[in-house]
Amino acid sequence: MHRFSIRVRYGDTDQMGFAYYANYLRWFEIGRAEMLRDLGMSYARVEEELEVSLPVLEAACRYHRAARYDDLVVIETAVASLKRASVRFAYRVVREDGTLLAEGHTEHCFLARDGRPTRMPASLEALMARAPRV
Amino acid sequence: MHRFSIRVRYGDTDQMGFAYYANYLRWFEIGRAEMLRDLGMSYARVEEELEVSLPVLEAACRYHRAARYDDLVVIETAVASLKRASVRFAYRVVREDGTLLAEGHTEHCFLARDGRPTRMPASLEALMARAPRV
Amino acid sequence: MHRFSIRVRYGDTDQMGFAYYANYLRWFEIGRAEMLRDLGMSYARVEEELEVSLPVLEAACRYHRAARYDDLVVIETAVASLKRASVRFAYRVVREDGTLLAEGHTEHCFLARDGRPTRMPASLEALMARAPRV
Amino acid sequence: MHRFSIRVRYGDTDQMGFAYYANYLRWFEIGRAEMLRDLGMSYARVEEELEVSLPVLEAACRYHRAARYDDLVVIETAVASLKRASVRFAYRVVREDGTLLAEGHTEHCFLARDGRPTRMPASLEALMARAPRV
Repeated sequence: MHRFSIRVRYGDTDQMGFAYYANYLRWFEIGRAEMLRDLGMSYARVEEELEVSLPVLEAACRYHRAARYDDLVVIETAVASLKRASVRFAYRVVREDGTLLAEGHTEHCFLARDGRPTRMPASLEALMARAPRV
Repeated sequence: MHRFSIRVRYGDTDQMGFAYYANYLRWFEIGRAEMLRDLGMSYARVEEELEVSLPVLEAACRYHRAARYDDLVVIETAVASLKRASVRFAYRVVREDGTLLAEGHTEHCFLARDGRPTRMPASLEALMARAPRV
Repeated sequence: MHRFSIRVRYGDTDQMGFAYYANYLRWFEIGRAEMLRDLGMSYARVEEELEVSLPVLEAACRYHRAARYDDLVVIETAVASLKRASVRFAYRVVREDGTLLAEGHTEHCFLARDGRPTRMPASLEALMARAPRV
Repeated sequence: MHRFSIRVRYGDTDQMGFAYYANYLRWFEIGRAEMLRDLGMSYARVEEELEVSLPVLEAACRYHRAARYDDLVVIETAVASLKRASVRFAYRVVREDGTLLAEGHTEHCFLARDGRPTRMPASLEALMARAPRV
């Protein structure tokens, strides 16, 4: 899987002393954006040049252990399935010492600039085909 | 289902013009907190008086239509399942005009103050038993 | 001053048990949006119908006492100064029992749809002239 | 000034296409945390080992130009003033190409574990004395 590290910030914590659960969806966003960048095309360019956006159809996360303030956590990202009109990314959030903190997925469709569903652009499909798979 | 209205704020939107997807998990938190309050015990009192917290084991959301800036959306919350050591809440996010925007669930366990898993306190179980069910 | 109540949510807290300091700027946004709505034109309509946006030039907050989870806090908002090309809002964040938690201000300019600075539209100026002042 | 780079994420943007203004306060937090880490003691250790926390008394930000999605921005942090019972950090947010996006400050006091104001611990004072100054 593609790996990218982020640091848990004070603003991410809640009064239990854990990273608040909605932050993991933000981390998933960071994971897929950085995977795309490393594959050769940033998501910013996907929106600007390919003129499609990838809104989220579904997101899920299973929380195994808490991330805490100042933890350095690795977001692992891979493509779980690839269809004409949708893509599913799988994620794992892992602490520096290898402990699995959470795992989840997001599913996305493709929207043209006019807001209509569209097929995945060929250049993006070629990019995704080179992504790590699970 | 229990109903509670919230307003989509500017800070919730992203550059697609939609409410960012992680916000729905925050809205689910608001939904379950307000349902508990209406059942007779705020989550603040659950933590303080019953001395248990309800960390999230799993969260999932299916996004049907986008919420937009300044939309007034209703968070509908119910208990989906109730076990000795866990509870699952179901949610629907509905626009004022009745359009279903999203639906999802969260599953929680019970942690004692010392951080160990525990059973649901009897008073909380009695409260949950009176919650709307799906 | 215009008054609007919000509830401190779990996701707003940090591991000190306080509402994280950046949330106050979000609350200021809520305060000015609700003041505009009560004056007769929502900020959504300002952007859509008057075709101007009010980006923030400056924001400041002085924190006196902490807001805590589940506190019901009142955001008090007023117009502090009104110029041709900018407006300054003043805010106070007050706990239900009257305790002052924080006070601050934001200053905004007016941007036309093309991204250029513009003067305040006359209809918005008329609206602002009826706002509470400090 | 101490320099640390962060990436503007999708969840940071709003429907104007800019990074939402409250995020800058979060970035200031990242700036001071990373400056402390580079000076030799993470803020996590300040809380755990020195048993003091640094709640924010005041925060201010002046916004010059918008940060946009996927921008890599540098947070520059320095100590602006150092007193027995408070410290003020100054910040600049600069785009990769050197453009100044925003500047601001935060002022903090020192709280002991019992929640009472206290003096800055000597070891922290020694650390701060070695920080970049403005």
